[in-house]
Amino acid sequence: MLSAELAVRRTEVAAIDARLGSDVDRLIGYISTGGKRLRPQFLCWGWLAAQDGTDHPELPAGVIKAAAALELIQACALIHDDIIDRSDTRRGQPSVHRSVEKMHAGNGWSGDSAHFGVSAALLLGDLALAWADDLFADGLAELGRPAGAMRAWRAMRTEVLAGQLLDLRISADESPDPAIAAADAMVVNRYKTAAYTVERPLHLGAALANAGEPTIDALRAYGKAIGIGFQLRDDLLGVFGDPAVTGKPAGGDLIEGKRTVLLAMARSALIDQPDLLAELDQGVGTAMAPDQVDRLTALVAGTTAPAEVEARIAELFAAGVAALEVADDGRKNLVNAGATANLQRLALAATARDR
Amino acid sequence: MLSAELAVRRTEVAAIDARLGSDVDRLIGYISTGGKRLRPQFLCWGWLAAQDGTDHPELPAGVIKAAAALELIQACALIHDDIIDRSDTRRGQPSVHRSVEKMHAGNGWSGDSAHFGVSAALLLGDLALAWADDLFADGLAELGRPAGAMRAWRAMRTEVLAGQLLDLRISADESPDPAIAAADAMVVNRYKTAAYTVERPLHLGAALANAGEPTIDALRAYGKAIGIGFQLRDDLLGVFGDPAVTGKPAGGDLIEGKRTVLLAMARSALIDQPDLLAELDQGVGTAMAPDQVDRLTALVAGTTAPAEVEARIAELFAAGVAALEVADDGRKNLVNAGATANLQRLALAATARDR
Repeated sequence: MLSAELAVRRTEVAAIDARLGSDVDRLIGYISTGGKRLRPQFLCWGWLAAQDGTDHPELPAGVIKAAAALELIQACALIHDDIIDRSDTRRGQPSVHRSVEKMHAGNGWSGDSAHFGVSAALLLGDLALAWADDLFADGLAELGRPAGAMRAWRAMRTEVLAGQLLDLRISADESPDPAIAAADAMVVNRYKTAAYTVERPLHLGAALANAGEPTIDALRAYGKAIGIGFQLRDDLLGVFGDPAVTGKPAGGDLIEGKRTVLLAMARSALIDQPDLLAELDQGVGTAMAPDQVDRLTALVAGTTAPAEVEARIAELFAAGVAALEVADDGRKNLVNAGATANLQRLALAATARDR
Repeated sequence: MLSAELAVRRTEVAAIDARLGSDVDRLIGYISTGGKRLRPQFLCWGWLAAQDGTDHPELPAGVIKAAAALELIQACALIHDDIIDRSDTRRGQPSVHRSVEKMHAGNGWSGDSAHFGVSAALLLGDLALAWADDLFADGLAELGRPAGAMRAWRAMRTEVLAGQLLDLRISADESPDPAIAAADAMVVNRYKTAAYTVERPLHLGAALANAGEPTIDALRAYGKAIGIGFQLRDDLLGVFGDPAVTGKPAGGDLIEGKRTVLLAMARSALIDQPDLLAELDQGVGTAMAPDQVDRLTALVAGTTAPAEVEARIAELFAAGVAALEVADDGRKNLVNAGATANLQRLALAATARDR
């Protein structure tokens, strides 16, 4: 579905100038190679969870369009995030700005290749964002514009962008108090990732099905817990993940200097060991050599933070699944049985993955 | 109206984290200091032109919302464009990325101030783009979702972004043939500026009024001509404009290396003077010292290009105004008399301005 929609957009752009077809192809290729497709899955399960009965009705085309729109938002978020984080790779491939930079250099075009790559990637991200809105509007119209769905869509876009802005700000102006820094990292986790990845997609799906408040509340409670757990797992993988499995460098978050909840907890744990805390703080975001990164990884591993984060993920998983059960209890089909089982499966996939 | 809308968005963002309020304030300040407001004016006149009679009915709130949405799209376009063009100033003030960069440096925050400025500006532009869609959707709903308006909105966003992408590409990979380069510059003029500034805003306004095809065709013919003339005037001002009036440096387009139609015509005119052509080509985009810029300005002034561009603007002005008259002729109120007079006035403001 998404590829057919993108093919139409490609035709429109190529009609302006044929050379631009290859730019859109780059965006299409990026979206096709994939990722976990968690957001569209959550949207679809949000819709299914709000259906009566225990069987799985076929998903209407409007729901599939709305789900595909989430992948376009995600393409914009990742392309722009990679510019902000100066990431060279994404999904095991060069990031979009790096890939355009290479094309520019390879063609021997004039000007600065790196700046050209960033500029083109910025505009391709903008196109993805604009097209996401178009696709969502189409899906919404096909479903008779259920009240509430547009509100969820708007909240989601504002939240993810505000979460990114906050991430930027706390990375540049981190509180010297590790407890405040940990709280800040948790707000970023909540808005930049959790709400955007699980809670709002589920909310959207349910709202598109005209679900009642109790169903939406239950799904959002599940989504909030599982979304935060998803990002906490990301924090652990960003430091301890196997590069062969994650496709990202070992200790990647420490190299990038990402202000994660895990790092904030590790800093809190080192509050009485100022020498180690200073070593960690000086190394994060500046260490490049493998032995330096290994040393930082060992510093984090030596604290109670990894176990605390694991425990928190387990709590969140339990709380998320419990929110569905409470909702289901005594209110048959509030969250129907098939959806509950599949949301349990997705909760595991989001919080217990190794990549 | 726009400021009330933005105040609501500010509250939403500040609820996520109070510190983000100041980021939204930056966006609000940027939009308030304002520009010529040409796009919303054209949208309103598109709506008025499609009304019966010669009086001016009051603009419905939905039309004002759609017009305000254009200012949000424009905020995104300018903020992102300034990143791409590495512009230090806009509207006589520091560009958004520069202003955020200064705040970062002034606060003594950690990390690279310039990259922080670009990153925050990128996200603020994204917020403006997302909020533009929200505001347009509200306006559209209030006007009963007239068929055609959404199509015009979509085409406009794709066109302006595709025009920017093409601009980037032809700047990096300009054809050695001055005639092809001139044709390329004209395609960029058409999509990056003309359609986006005049033709589509008028089309949108008329579509929001459920105008018939003949009215829309007449307005678009006017808009295409006046929009191209608008950008050609920009080309002249970008080389010969008075910095005290334009708020931009003398010879700014030559310093930036902008691939304008004026420059392409000057290069064509120098085809038989290879020494001068080489001097121009080597200087554009690299000259920084005032005497170097003066020399490049003199080179362009010494060709027939400025007079050719002036003549083309005059033709386009006449063609645009004629499109309205033809439409008006014998079909009373197709383009009603009040709107016609005002569109003539706007045509002059767009093509005969000195800033």
